[in-house]
Amino acid sequence: MPDVNPSSVVVAPKKTGICGSDMHVFLDGVAGESKFEDPLILGHESAGVVAKVGSRVTTLKVGDRVAIEPGICCLRCEFCKGGEYGQCGDLKFAAADGFDGTLQGFFTIPADCCYKLPANVSMEEGALVEPLAVAVMAVHSVAKMPHNANVAVFGAGPVGLLTMAVAKALGARRILAIDVQPHRLEFAKGYAATDIHVASPKEPGEDNMTYSKRHAKIIMDKFGFGERGEGIDLVVECSGAEVCVQTGIWLVKRRGTYVQVGAGPANNLIPMSIFVNKEVKMIGSLRYGPGCYAMAIDLVRQGRLNLKPLLTHRFPFADAMLAFETTRKGTGPDGKMAIKTISEFSPTSSRLMLCAV
Amino acid sequence: MPDVNPSSVVVAPKKTGICGSDMHVFLDGVAGESKFEDPLILGHESAGVVAKVGSRVTTLKVGDRVAIEPGICCLRCEFCKGGEYGQCGDLKFAAADGFDGTLQGFFTIPADCCYKLPANVSMEEGALVEPLAVAVMAVHSVAKMPHNANVAVFGAGPVGLLTMAVAKALGARRILAIDVQPHRLEFAKGYAATDIHVASPKEPGEDNMTYSKRHAKIIMDKFGFGERGEGIDLVVECSGAEVCVQTGIWLVKRRGTYVQVGAGPANNLIPMSIFVNKEVKMIGSLRYGPGCYAMAIDLVRQGRLNLKPLLTHRFPFADAMLAFETTRKGTGPDGKMAIKTISEFSPTSSRLMLCAV
Amino acid sequence: MPDVNPSSVVVAPKKTGICGSDMHVFLDGVAGESKFEDPLILGHESAGVVAKVGSRVTTLKVGDRVAIEPGICCLRCEFCKGGEYGQCGDLKFAAADGFDGTLQGFFTIPADCCYKLPANVSMEEGALVEPLAVAVMAVHSVAKMPHNANVAVFGAGPVGLLTMAVAKALGARRILAIDVQPHRLEFAKGYAATDIHVASPKEPGEDNMTYSKRHAKIIMDKFGFGERGEGIDLVVECSGAEVCVQTGIWLVKRRGTYVQVGAGPANNLIPMSIFVNKEVKMIGSLRYGPGCYAMAIDLVRQGRLNLKPLLTHRFPFADAMLAFETTRKGTGPDGKMAIKTISEFSPTSSRLMLCAV
Amino acid sequence: MPDVNPSSVVVAPKKTGICGSDMHVFLDGVAGESKFEDPLILGHESAGVVAKVGSRVTTLKVGDRVAIEPGICCLRCEFCKGGEYGQCGDLKFAAADGFDGTLQGFFTIPADCCYKLPANVSMEEGALVEPLAVAVMAVHSVAKMPHNANVAVFGAGPVGLLTMAVAKALGARRILAIDVQPHRLEFAKGYAATDIHVASPKEPGEDNMTYSKRHAKIIMDKFGFGERGEGIDLVVECSGAEVCVQTGIWLVKRRGTYVQVGAGPANNLIPMSIFVNKEVKMIGSLRYGPGCYAMAIDLVRQGRLNLKPLLTHRFPFADAMLAFETTRKGTGPDGKMAIKTISEFSPTSSRLMLCAV
Repeated sequence: MPDVNPSSVVVAPKKTGICGSDMHVFLDGVAGESKFEDPLILGHESAGVVAKVGSRVTTLKVGDRVAIEPGICCLRCEFCKGGEYGQCGDLKFAAADGFDGTLQGFFTIPADCCYKLPANVSMEEGALVEPLAVAVMAVHSVAKMPHNANVAVFGAGPVGLLTMAVAKALGARRILAIDVQPHRLEFAKGYAATDIHVASPKEPGEDNMTYSKRHAKIIMDKFGFGERGEGIDLVVECSGAEVCVQTGIWLVKRRGTYVQVGAGPANNLIPMSIFVNKEVKMIGSLRYGPGCYAMAIDLVRQGRLNLKPLLTHRFPFADAMLAFETTRKGTGPDGKMAIKTISEFSPTSSRLMLCAV
Repeated sequence: MPDVNPSSVVVAPKKTGICGSDMHVFLDGVAGESKFEDPLILGHESAGVVAKVGSRVTTLKVGDRVAIEPGICCLRCEFCKGGEYGQCGDLKFAAADGFDGTLQGFFTIPADCCYKLPANVSMEEGALVEPLAVAVMAVHSVAKMPHNANVAVFGAGPVGLLTMAVAKALGARRILAIDVQPHRLEFAKGYAATDIHVASPKEPGEDNMTYSKRHAKIIMDKFGFGERGEGIDLVVECSGAEVCVQTGIWLVKRRGTYVQVGAGPANNLIPMSIFVNKEVKMIGSLRYGPGCYAMAIDLVRQGRLNLKPLLTHRFPFADAMLAFETTRKGTGPDGKMAIKTISEFSPTSSRLMLCAV
Repeated sequence: MPDVNPSSVVVAPKKTGICGSDMHVFLDGVAGESKFEDPLILGHESAGVVAKVGSRVTTLKVGDRVAIEPGICCLRCEFCKGGEYGQCGDLKFAAADGFDGTLQGFFTIPADCCYKLPANVSMEEGALVEPLAVAVMAVHSVAKMPHNANVAVFGAGPVGLLTMAVAKALGARRILAIDVQPHRLEFAKGYAATDIHVASPKEPGEDNMTYSKRHAKIIMDKFGFGERGEGIDLVVECSGAEVCVQTGIWLVKRRGTYVQVGAGPANNLIPMSIFVNKEVKMIGSLRYGPGCYAMAIDLVRQGRLNLKPLLTHRFPFADAMLAFETTRKGTGPDGKMAIKTISEFSPTSSRLMLCAV
Repeated sequence: MPDVNPSSVVVAPKKTGICGSDMHVFLDGVAGESKFEDPLILGHESAGVVAKVGSRVTTLKVGDRVAIEPGICCLRCEFCKGGEYGQCGDLKFAAADGFDGTLQGFFTIPADCCYKLPANVSMEEGALVEPLAVAVMAVHSVAKMPHNANVAVFGAGPVGLLTMAVAKALGARRILAIDVQPHRLEFAKGYAATDIHVASPKEPGEDNMTYSKRHAKIIMDKFGFGERGEGIDLVVECSGAEVCVQTGIWLVKRRGTYVQVGAGPANNLIPMSIFVNKEVKMIGSLRYGPGCYAMAIDLVRQGRLNLKPLLTHRFPFADAMLAFETTRKGTGPDGKMAIKTISEFSPTSSRLMLCAV
């Protein structure tokens, strides 16, 4: 077990979710604009048990069950002191930034990055607090979703579904889920969406912008939304597809808010004339910030938000490769749709060296 | 003189500024996405004298000198009642929307769209309150410019210069003006900018995005701005050029604000990865809204903002065509740089039928 | 039937709620700082049927069932255009400001003050939209209740209960109701509160401030609230009692928000040292503003908020005096607790001249 | 010289301002609700020279001239991480909280609490950054002073004067100073106020509330302010006198903001009816928070704000008692008005044990 400085703890991670960005690192050795060359331990969606506490830690004790916020900020720069630690220039994020991730027997982290799990929140759910905090950041901290809002969410993958769930838990009025995969939308409908829309097909030779304008009109007509009156107050774009970015801007109400979660391709063509004409507000949302983990856990504890239906596949650590494969395919070895895949850590197993090639 | 309803007034416009959008209507019969087919009287930047008041008007009397806000909203929809009348679905804007503009002997308008000019504000300055209100909207109402902000303004035409002047009047810290024309930047420096930058040239074969990323880096290095610490808190983009849109997003500080004033080409390619990574907020700003005219006039009255240097060319009504020509060229018949051109109305002249062809 | 101007309608009010302020006018001839000398028709919580529409009205037609917003603003002053029409200096409020109220056969009002009732919202519920809009104003527009907030509401009368209901509908986490009457709190518990507290008794000779500090401590200990961590994010004070004002300030979390709805006694002693030390934000909330009626009706339509349990007593118009008496006593002639009393208008009855003496 | 932990520095304080709260501790052994029993070194408004740096400090080096932010927060609680470190429950403030102040040869503090002084900011001015940061907090962080605001400041002592200076530097429109001492108002007029008002006398037997209502009316009439139109957008109350608290609430515009800086007597009677009727927002402002020191120093560096006129009296450390006496009296031994008194530390002098009795 590693040594620990006075304000840190050692956690033994028990459950770890596998996410799309893990796949990029694993398969391609890249994440966003970062390129990995040296071996790196993956894993950043984890919950575990506190195994050791630093001398000045008063908020945690050995044996506590915790969700891990896997980014270490400097605490002292203008961003950290100003309540924007997610933008800290010295942020070290697990399984990135040359900092080994949580898929190992022991993981050392400042105590203030660990959040105790209430008795009614399982370790598996604890692992999913990480992507849930991404959704809380987008809907709560960044969008500041208005009361009784109509919300459209593009993308019904894990982050999209969690975004819908957060919007629902925080009181959204209608939640429209948009994706290309009907079976994912069916799931969304049973989970947190009030309305679902399978993306209309492109016409032959139609360019993205022509399509997206037409597509937005189809959606508005189908669901009774408009630029004024009952419109979409908030778009949260989680797919990263350019046609979704564009459709979202065409779709949002005048003076509405559009939040981009995760960036997809580096550059996107956006319809600027209508953006200005409607005085849209577009904001980027990156990971999480103050209060996101606490709110995420609290919503689960209260039962306002149910993580269990998302946990579709579990693998023992020895089958970690299957876990990655399932995440990549979106389908498990059982042939069923995979939403969230959990790797269960066996305390006797050695570190999982998942290296970028 | 036309009849007037109880809450309206008839104004005799005395001075009218000519603006770029007038040129588009005049030359091409288009303004944004609108196409004009029928003859239309132009003019929307005007000040004049009240000639007749409706029976219920208590705030104005015949003879009052006023600046005219040339958009008539319904007052009663959710946007109007909610303090967002610029987004009213029934907004009728002068010299557009089939509604004749101010380049005529008498112009009828609701009394609440007329703002009395203080004694120390001339009729010419009154005509420029309209574009000044556009700048107030962008900097004050939409951007909510932070105290002591570093601001970058793209475009040193009339709206860009007024944006700088508003930023300065409202307490900006540094104001960086960026344009392609050195003589306009020289003017900006003497007027309201603290720093100026002549846009660097593109390299052969360089695409817009590669250029804009490199360009932003050049600017940051030259002026000591960065993503953190002393950075650009606010970008106001007034040029509509795609490379400026892009450079602005690359340039703005983390968690900074980017405001687009006027849309330029319908679609723009934006660097979405860095947009999300920096959690930029981008907002469209359209014309003006509550309080913009009042604040614009008050800043001029106080002497915090000087409109006079912008008034470079004046033409009698008979030479209106010269006024348009000067605006189009950006140079007057005197060979001097034109910033703002004023058409002086002669009370005996007939209506100016400036028709889109 | 009265004539109507082009943008107004005539409504035949069908159901009218009786409220505490009606009682003050009726019994004492005063409302707040206003004194009434001339006879005045009471009634301002009404729903009815549109009987006539002005020539320019397009949003309503004869026969429409509507809730009436009983304040007429000028639409054109800085407050009206700025989205703050509730502060309009020319606001004429029904049954006040020398403007007869709704307890008459026909009531004339601008069309934009009438809100169509959805099919699943009854006329009785429509009458209660008025006090519900007061609660929406306090919780949504003024307090901007944070997501997942802990809210304490002082006073379990109609406005207090509706405040709890709005907080619940908009996603509050815990809602603590505080009152002196146990049976009202029992009702609150079954209605919208998650926690209730019967105000602790004062000790002999204890002054208000000593009591309120002690009382806040009792409440914090009993319910596990503190100044930090899990605390009261928002206090909404609806009782007007000085000890509640004080207890609310002692109770609210650091950096929390306290909203005062209705003023009670003209002056209140507040604990200023702790107010500054905790950097509390205290805001006054007056009636309603943009969007309150629309949101109120929409919450009822969605079934997120149930007005029916509040409708405890109904009287035909001929028994209007009994309606007033029931409101004053808080108990009906049936001996049951009265929350909201409705006067049912008979179309054949004459105007109800309820005059202040 | 004391040892230093890795992220802290040792500063040798060179100049220390003496403030009113020092006087309370010194003379009465109390500060706010705290009571001091053990000897305590005073001093919290200091600038000095870095004498030693911890092993991980990269932002400072020995010899740097710095202003000291004299409060140490935990960095890790919900308030610290959320950008509200001034409300940290573990905040240790110098010369309070059992933590010795800066009137000693060496003072140890985390590096992030030291702010480098630009070359054009003197050590004396550096000492005054502390009260200046209090004013920045009130005007910028808490009040979020609107652009072009009319501001009234009650109290023309050091904090009041600095509040006026910050309001001016950040672009206020009119700044009305109110105090009882004409010579302090004269100073304010020459310094940062645009208008001054010597508080009108109370009439015999007049209670505070009657007086304050009448007083506000006198001020409004005299300066042309009203509840609407040109009104006071922001009141900053720095005197702590109940009549000022009350007058401020009567004076502020509808929907205006009132900020209380420092609390004066524990309890104040406020006019609640008009508070609700005008929908005033009242907020407490405590010390400072993120960005206040940086902005304070930057305003001085830019020359937007001049601290020099406030530095009226200087005493060598051996005459520290005279410094305290001067602060208490508001007049120096030279018979001149004292605003800010500086104690100059001699490096050879021993610690100044200023003990509460």
